[in-house]
Amino acid sequence: MRATIMYKPYDVGIENVPDAAIQEPTDAVIRIVRACICGSDLWFYRDGPANDHQSMGHEAIGIVEDVGSAVRTVKPGQLVIMPFVYSDGSCLFCGEGLQTACVHGGTFGVGGEAQGAQAEALRIPYADGTLYPLPVEPDEALMPSLLSLSDVMGTGHHAAVTARVQPGGTVAVVGDGAVGLCGVIAAKRLGAEQIIIMGHHDERIALAQEFGATDVVRERGEEGIARVRELTGGYGVKSVLECVGTGQAIETSIGIVRPGGAVGRVGVAHYESLPGPDTFFRNVTISGGPAPVRAYIEDLLPDVMAGTIQPGRVFDSTIGLDGVPDGYRAMDERQSLKVLIRP
Amino acid sequence: MRATIMYKPYDVGIENVPDAAIQEPTDAVIRIVRACICGSDLWFYRDGPANDHQSMGHEAIGIVEDVGSAVRTVKPGQLVIMPFVYSDGSCLFCGEGLQTACVHGGTFGVGGEAQGAQAEALRIPYADGTLYPLPVEPDEALMPSLLSLSDVMGTGHHAAVTARVQPGGTVAVVGDGAVGLCGVIAAKRLGAEQIIIMGHHDERIALAQEFGATDVVRERGEEGIARVRELTGGYGVKSVLECVGTGQAIETSIGIVRPGGAVGRVGVAHYESLPGPDTFFRNVTISGGPAPVRAYIEDLLPDVMAGTIQPGRVFDSTIGLDGVPDGYRAMDERQSLKVLIRP
Repeated sequence: MRATIMYKPYDVGIENVPDAAIQEPTDAVIRIVRACICGSDLWFYRDGPANDHQSMGHEAIGIVEDVGSAVRTVKPGQLVIMPFVYSDGSCLFCGEGLQTACVHGGTFGVGGEAQGAQAEALRIPYADGTLYPLPVEPDEALMPSLLSLSDVMGTGHHAAVTARVQPGGTVAVVGDGAVGLCGVIAAKRLGAEQIIIMGHHDERIALAQEFGATDVVRERGEEGIARVRELTGGYGVKSVLECVGTGQAIETSIGIVRPGGAVGRVGVAHYESLPGPDTFFRNVTISGGPAPVRAYIEDLLPDVMAGTIQPGRVFDSTIGLDGVPDGYRAMDERQSLKVLIRP
Repeated sequence: MRATIMYKPYDVGIENVPDAAIQEPTDAVIRIVRACICGSDLWFYRDGPANDHQSMGHEAIGIVEDVGSAVRTVKPGQLVIMPFVYSDGSCLFCGEGLQTACVHGGTFGVGGEAQGAQAEALRIPYADGTLYPLPVEPDEALMPSLLSLSDVMGTGHHAAVTARVQPGGTVAVVGDGAVGLCGVIAAKRLGAEQIIIMGHHDERIALAQEFGATDVVRERGEEGIARVRELTGGYGVKSVLECVGTGQAIETSIGIVRPGGAVGRVGVAHYESLPGPDTFFRNVTISGGPAPVRAYIEDLLPDVMAGTIQPGRVFDSTIGLDGVPDGYRAMDERQSLKVLIRP
């Protein structure tokens, strides 16, 4: 079968690899129906892969082809969402809905034991705990939004939840990438009254406004902080959705959150530390981390099915597997917001 | 009148100062009935005062002597709790119950505009927003616990609230000082099942156990972290009450919190930074700050009145104003846990 392999910085290709196959009785194999490229894949693209032959991709919808002898709930033929981590479904953390901390879990396509989803098929460990069977047949129009539940929409939602977005609340979303845009959707869905998008790409900002952003701040750094304060009576916002993961993004987030407010972090942390005394004296809460998207599907799926949220709109280009190297290039150069793959 | 003045490190004395008097129409003057020395006063005692003549003390119960022309709800003769910060009672933050962020607020006895409560009397800015009139006459047995609502018990409660203590939850309290012991009371009151006290003073640990601590960890640093993990099936606790404020205490707190758990910080932050990636990848929430004790009195007072919680037991010695210098010495040398003052 064909799969996406990262060789070195800026060098990703498609090659033939051994077919995905059951290895453990709790495994399934899925045929990938849709996959995509994540902003976090670009860290590997820019900084280099985790190993010299990294299988890429951690977001997918698939059809179950085969299941191991111990798989109980997942059946061949089902259309399933594959969250970006696998999880046993039975440990303490899975029981609490924090599958990203599963004691037997791991992430797809980051150089660990599990291969990547930018491929024709994929072995899924702990199929019952990992896969979410969908109550629908493949539906062309719905597929992008369903796919977003495997990572990007659940991640934006996690930012909103951990930033404690409340009805009537004031929110800022740091970053106008696909996660930030899904953060806008999530904040609007949870009833925020003021949603400030911080970014500077015209098309993305326009989409953020369609999703519910009420204000736009294009400035960065100290100027951006000052502008958000201006827009909030000098106080700052109650909830900040940090959707980038750089040191500057976290500084901005802490600069714009008001006393008693919360920062929900979902940008993969590429900074070493958080300020101690400033956050203490202002009673700022810092929360977030890798999103337990498996737990959020239940909440978000009805709104996707009903079309009341349309996170699939973050995909602005569709390619086949052969187009994946160009897809990485386009996202790296910001010519594309998020690339959808039909293997 | 007489008041406590800090001159330089390890040099605190009682001197005559001008009588407390109304300056603004929103002021009151209270006669101090009980005050005390706080663990946070010891930072000034050891590191030096904020200015060369720092008026000390920020916890008190008093009787209202005089009120300004704009004071509406507070009346002369009332017995009142004086929270450690003054607050206007009408700003955005006061409305949300975060009086420690009041836009016109400040802290008593830390070298700012407001004088200290280790004195015979004190001017109270924004009397209506600041003071909490008590529904009782001075009652000898209840006074220590009522006094604790001005800071130490409310602060322990804030640690528990921001650490998201839940019924049946697992909790660790870092520090066996008076705030830590009140944290144990608060965790027990909120229904925690396992409460681990981390400290190494026999008498304080014994009191923590009377207050509801189920386990004791005397080790510090890496050993202490390992021991808490042993006591919690290897996972760590869901809620950490950080009641010290040193770098080692925050390191321990983050080392013992489990994925998805929360650290509620109330020890005044004497560390520069918090770890970024580790807390991110484990979905750890860091919260807390100066406790809005004014907002918590409503919750805690009925339990104090009923005697179901007895935070006043943290006071292990009682002195007059003349004894204050000795009181600082005794607390600094850990001969006393917390000193109560009857001016």
